[in-house]
Amino acid sequence: MNFADRLTDSIRLKNSCACVGLDPRLESIPAPIRKAASDEYGDTLEGAVAAILEFSRHIVDIVAPHMPAVKPQIAFYERYGWQGLRAYAHVLAYAKSKGLLVIADAKRGDIGSTAEAYADAHLGHVVVGSAEERIFQADALTVNPYLGWDSVDPFIETAKEHGAGIFVLVKTSNPSSADFQDVRCGDKRLYEIVAENVATWGKDLMGESGYSSVGAVVGATFPQEAAALRKLMPKAYFLVPGYGAQGATAKDVAPCFNPDGLGAIVNASRSIIFAHQSPAWRDKHPEADWHRAVEDAVYKMNEELRAVR
Amino acid sequence: MNFADRLTDSIRLKNSCACVGLDPRLESIPAPIRKAASDEYGDTLEGAVAAILEFSRHIVDIVAPHMPAVKPQIAFYERYGWQGLRAYAHVLAYAKSKGLLVIADAKRGDIGSTAEAYADAHLGHVVVGSAEERIFQADALTVNPYLGWDSVDPFIETAKEHGAGIFVLVKTSNPSSADFQDVRCGDKRLYEIVAENVATWGKDLMGESGYSSVGAVVGATFPQEAAALRKLMPKAYFLVPGYGAQGATAKDVAPCFNPDGLGAIVNASRSIIFAHQSPAWRDKHPEADWHRAVEDAVYKMNEELRAVR
Repeated sequence: MNFADRLTDSIRLKNSCACVGLDPRLESIPAPIRKAASDEYGDTLEGAVAAILEFSRHIVDIVAPHMPAVKPQIAFYERYGWQGLRAYAHVLAYAKSKGLLVIADAKRGDIGSTAEAYADAHLGHVVVGSAEERIFQADALTVNPYLGWDSVDPFIETAKEHGAGIFVLVKTSNPSSADFQDVRCGDKRLYEIVAENVATWGKDLMGESGYSSVGAVVGATFPQEAAALRKLMPKAYFLVPGYGAQGATAKDVAPCFNPDGLGAIVNASRSIIFAHQSPAWRDKHPEADWHRAVEDAVYKMNEELRAVR
Repeated sequence: MNFADRLTDSIRLKNSCACVGLDPRLESIPAPIRKAASDEYGDTLEGAVAAILEFSRHIVDIVAPHMPAVKPQIAFYERYGWQGLRAYAHVLAYAKSKGLLVIADAKRGDIGSTAEAYADAHLGHVVVGSAEERIFQADALTVNPYLGWDSVDPFIETAKEHGAGIFVLVKTSNPSSADFQDVRCGDKRLYEIVAENVATWGKDLMGESGYSSVGAVVGATFPQEAAALRKLMPKAYFLVPGYGAQGATAKDVAPCFNPDGLGAIVNASRSIIFAHQSPAWRDKHPEADWHRAVEDAVYKMNEELRAVR
């Protein structure tokens, strides 16, 4: 089934267009989880990986009933090498088993058969002997467009075959996104040219929902640009990072939605998963009850977004 | 020691500015290696990984005396998940033990602390307890610039601390690189704007050789553009893909060199590592002697490049 349709169904079912980023920075993980891992494995790489795996699973458990998706950031697992990536594979499978869609934030991008290899690993399968092995079970993947169409096409082909999706980086949430994305090219900015391509590429992966499985990453930190991009890519789902810790509010993401209240999935990472450290929650919940802070942050984000959709 | 200096020393020592890409596509690996892995592990994921590991090691053994560097393409290991990435880590350590510089072709790019996590994994180290663990031991990494300065800076900081380098994608070798890289922005193309930034970013990592450890990826398939880029980035090493199977010849890469005969490291992948399948060598060497085809291809590439430096 088409990814955009699956995402739309899940957004409606859970009455939420929010998504939580799994960015398990070891130093921010609640002390009880770090201590348990350290007691079992010592202060070793295995111990670090055990802590990020356990923490990721807890977040999945808390988020699953309330939001349609999680967005694991692979870099925080890749940081711990193959052991970390083994944990990453477990987290993806676990999230899917809990009914969550998995948007893998890996920002991959390469040419031809190299892009195919990435697509097989993250969205498709690998054939070994007579078996088809799933490697990292993501439903969608973020993709970097700098290398052009022949670097994006293999991801789209694999997505088509497996009911998966991609989110192409268009206008990212970081301050330096202006360096190249905002360069003026005639009467357009570069990100607008990328957006026009994304709209074209998406025609081949339209779902019954009226949305395409070729989406776009559009930072919540640039609401004016988002309004213009919404017009350029009316059928694309926007994956909207930058909510919460990066400073964007519900009002800022409002331009990312279509009049039907759909078309965007808004991500927050640190402000949710490390809510126990935030001024908003740390006085209400002691660190031992860190999951209550996460729950409160999840509820609050859903409420805030419902008000602007 | 500065990466650009280490690369320069090794180019002089081996009298070679060539580099071989480790792109171990399973289906192209010589039959004897695939059979040995299959006999030991069956037609399983473990068997596939054993074959790509063994093949990669053989290529390293052949290349090490004759060329300064190898360029492992992580996608062909990532395709097999954590098992593949465990093999990737072994290949990098093995190449370094044989005196080769390792240019990891991973094209990573993300913002802030996420980029730091990638940089730690590929160029730096990870602190666990009182230990500093090396994860993937690369000397340099390819980096995608689409997200701008704050996505590149963490790699440069880590490179500075560890004597490592980066190669920023500027003008890639694939046909669709024109889609965005060639977009006209005022009187410049986008890749020229990126190049000017690379030249500026590199000032902080200059070596005694006169070259910077902030290099650029410039495809061999666009010699005219390469000549212009050589002027825009006189102190940057060019990592030049596209030689061989992608159609570029020694004459095409000549504009990538400075008058001192330095400043470029030219990569070939398929035409070297799968030389046993190429029309040039397959009649001369039976598949059982596939390593002789690789050796011949290595000698020939070195000779061709010496003629144009």
